[in-house]
Amino acid sequence: MKITKLSIIDAAEKIKPFIHKTPVLTNQTINKMTGIEFYFKCENFQKIGAFKIRGGMNATLNLSKEQLAKGIATHSSGNHAQALAYAGKKLGIKAHIVMPKSSPQVKVNAVRGYGANVILCESNQQAREEALQKVVDETGASFIHPYDNDDVITGQATCVKELLEEIPDLDIVITPVGGGGLLSGTCLGAFYFKPGLQVYAGEPEGAADAVLSIKSGKVEKAPYVNTIADGLLTTLSERTLAIIKEHVTDIFLVSDEEIKNALRLVYERMKIIVEPSCVVPFAAALKNAQLFKGKKVGIILSGGNVDLAKLGEWYSEK
Amino acid sequence: MKITKLSIIDAAEKIKPFIHKTPVLTNQTINKMTGIEFYFKCENFQKIGAFKIRGGMNATLNLSKEQLAKGIATHSSGNHAQALAYAGKKLGIKAHIVMPKSSPQVKVNAVRGYGANVILCESNQQAREEALQKVVDETGASFIHPYDNDDVITGQATCVKELLEEIPDLDIVITPVGGGGLLSGTCLGAFYFKPGLQVYAGEPEGAADAVLSIKSGKVEKAPYVNTIADGLLTTLSERTLAIIKEHVTDIFLVSDEEIKNALRLVYERMKIIVEPSCVVPFAAALKNAQLFKGKKVGIILSGGNVDLAKLGEWYSEK
Repeated sequence: MKITKLSIIDAAEKIKPFIHKTPVLTNQTINKMTGIEFYFKCENFQKIGAFKIRGGMNATLNLSKEQLAKGIATHSSGNHAQALAYAGKKLGIKAHIVMPKSSPQVKVNAVRGYGANVILCESNQQAREEALQKVVDETGASFIHPYDNDDVITGQATCVKELLEEIPDLDIVITPVGGGGLLSGTCLGAFYFKPGLQVYAGEPEGAADAVLSIKSGKVEKAPYVNTIADGLLTTLSERTLAIIKEHVTDIFLVSDEEIKNALRLVYERMKIIVEPSCVVPFAAALKNAQLFKGKKVGIILSGGNVDLAKLGEWYSEK
Repeated sequence: MKITKLSIIDAAEKIKPFIHKTPVLTNQTINKMTGIEFYFKCENFQKIGAFKIRGGMNATLNLSKEQLAKGIATHSSGNHAQALAYAGKKLGIKAHIVMPKSSPQVKVNAVRGYGANVILCESNQQAREEALQKVVDETGASFIHPYDNDDVITGQATCVKELLEEIPDLDIVITPVGGGGLLSGTCLGAFYFKPGLQVYAGEPEGAADAVLSIKSGKVEKAPYVNTIADGLLTTLSERTLAIIKEHVTDIFLVSDEEIKNALRLVYERMKIIVEPSCVVPFAAALKNAQLFKGKKVGIILSGGNVDLAKLGEWYSEK
């Protein structure tokens, strides 16, 4: 295996000057309500508002001088786009980001704000891949996949490492799972830095590919895709599945209603802004509270990039 | 004057076991945008989600044993209601809270959740005062006014004291102004703990009584009342006006549009939940940025109790 304890330590050192050491928050009311001792690792306060900067920055920093000179490229409409744009800006290299035309203007602006070259394409997988291939062919830029990349996974592993440095006697850690970059990184981080630490994941019912893939042992598609957790729509890759299969204790499904309730609890009790995808592990813990009672449970609050207008839609019904 | 340096120090000691020492946050992006060095004192993370616990708790702790035995009372639909309800719970005494029937159910529930006795009344000042008088007559409870009370003002003064302990070289501090409890407390805290510190306030255009009162030298009503900053609708009292008149450098008006823009900046850049009333001083600083350029400016983010459904209303237009 390419990802080792040393490579995670090395990644943490390398990305340190470019990222925040995010705080770990606790909340007495939530602990009292649930009987669980929660530790929230606040990656919503991270640079670019999400953990994705860890993997994106590490992968970029591992390129050779020659590669860096030709720039980096990816297709993403989400936090990975911002991560690479930010990395490009910090290192003074070009970042080419393929984004679907349907991306919210505010996200396109944010990526452009970091000086990245945004290439708009039709909103389907084929168009994205073609547009990416074209820019890679033209510029020689290095493609950095959002999660199917060892350096990206290694970067994401630094998050649980930091959490363990602050809360060494943690019993359990729970992450969201989309493509599996954060989850597989967390699995490896736990394995190397605290072998007894149990790793769970939360997944939306409306993007339930990981649960199926773990069951069948091969990469499966979700039976249907419909969830407010819009950062978790991607499917596992062979690479992330292999790691997750070996290390994860369990993956729990949660409904959008459960995600909204968890989100409300974080907003109202903790007074912090998080995105729906990022409370999925917390929603999973609340749903399966029996299992975690009396335990020290780390929740990776993976990001805080949420459209304010959406909040009203979700909560105006109540 | 009854409020002295020693009484503020005493208040800080007394309330310490019951409140959080709230963090002071900074944000590089906002500093870069404005050329101002902002220090945000995050009372949105305070117990009950607002600074009001400081004054409410201090006033309650200053009652005699005999008074405590008969309980405390107030009329409020806002954060002061929660502050007294929480104080009552913590000290094991009865809190009677008169709330207008029009109060959101969630606020009534929150106050009841602390075990307080909620008395619902019609939504006008006379009905509130009558209902309060009735419960005070019946129970002998001590009425603790939300701001027209020296112990409450003394409690609010502890907030700037804490801020100065963390950022001793602060140049300026800005608070919101409604009834003037926080502003007059901040004026006195600045006067006693850092005499050179300039104190400014922000006030909504749609509740502009303080600006008028400072001009005329007597308590004035706002020409009209219409603002999303629903925690700042009250008018100054003789007591708060006297202190503010003597110490405040200036009070700036801001429009609801400016409040919404400041709120968006805090949500999107700082990823924390604050209520509209609480970004009024930040909106005032943004509007008058020229005045504060290069200065270390403390902003008291006074609270975080906001109705999520409202967020959608405010931002869906954009």
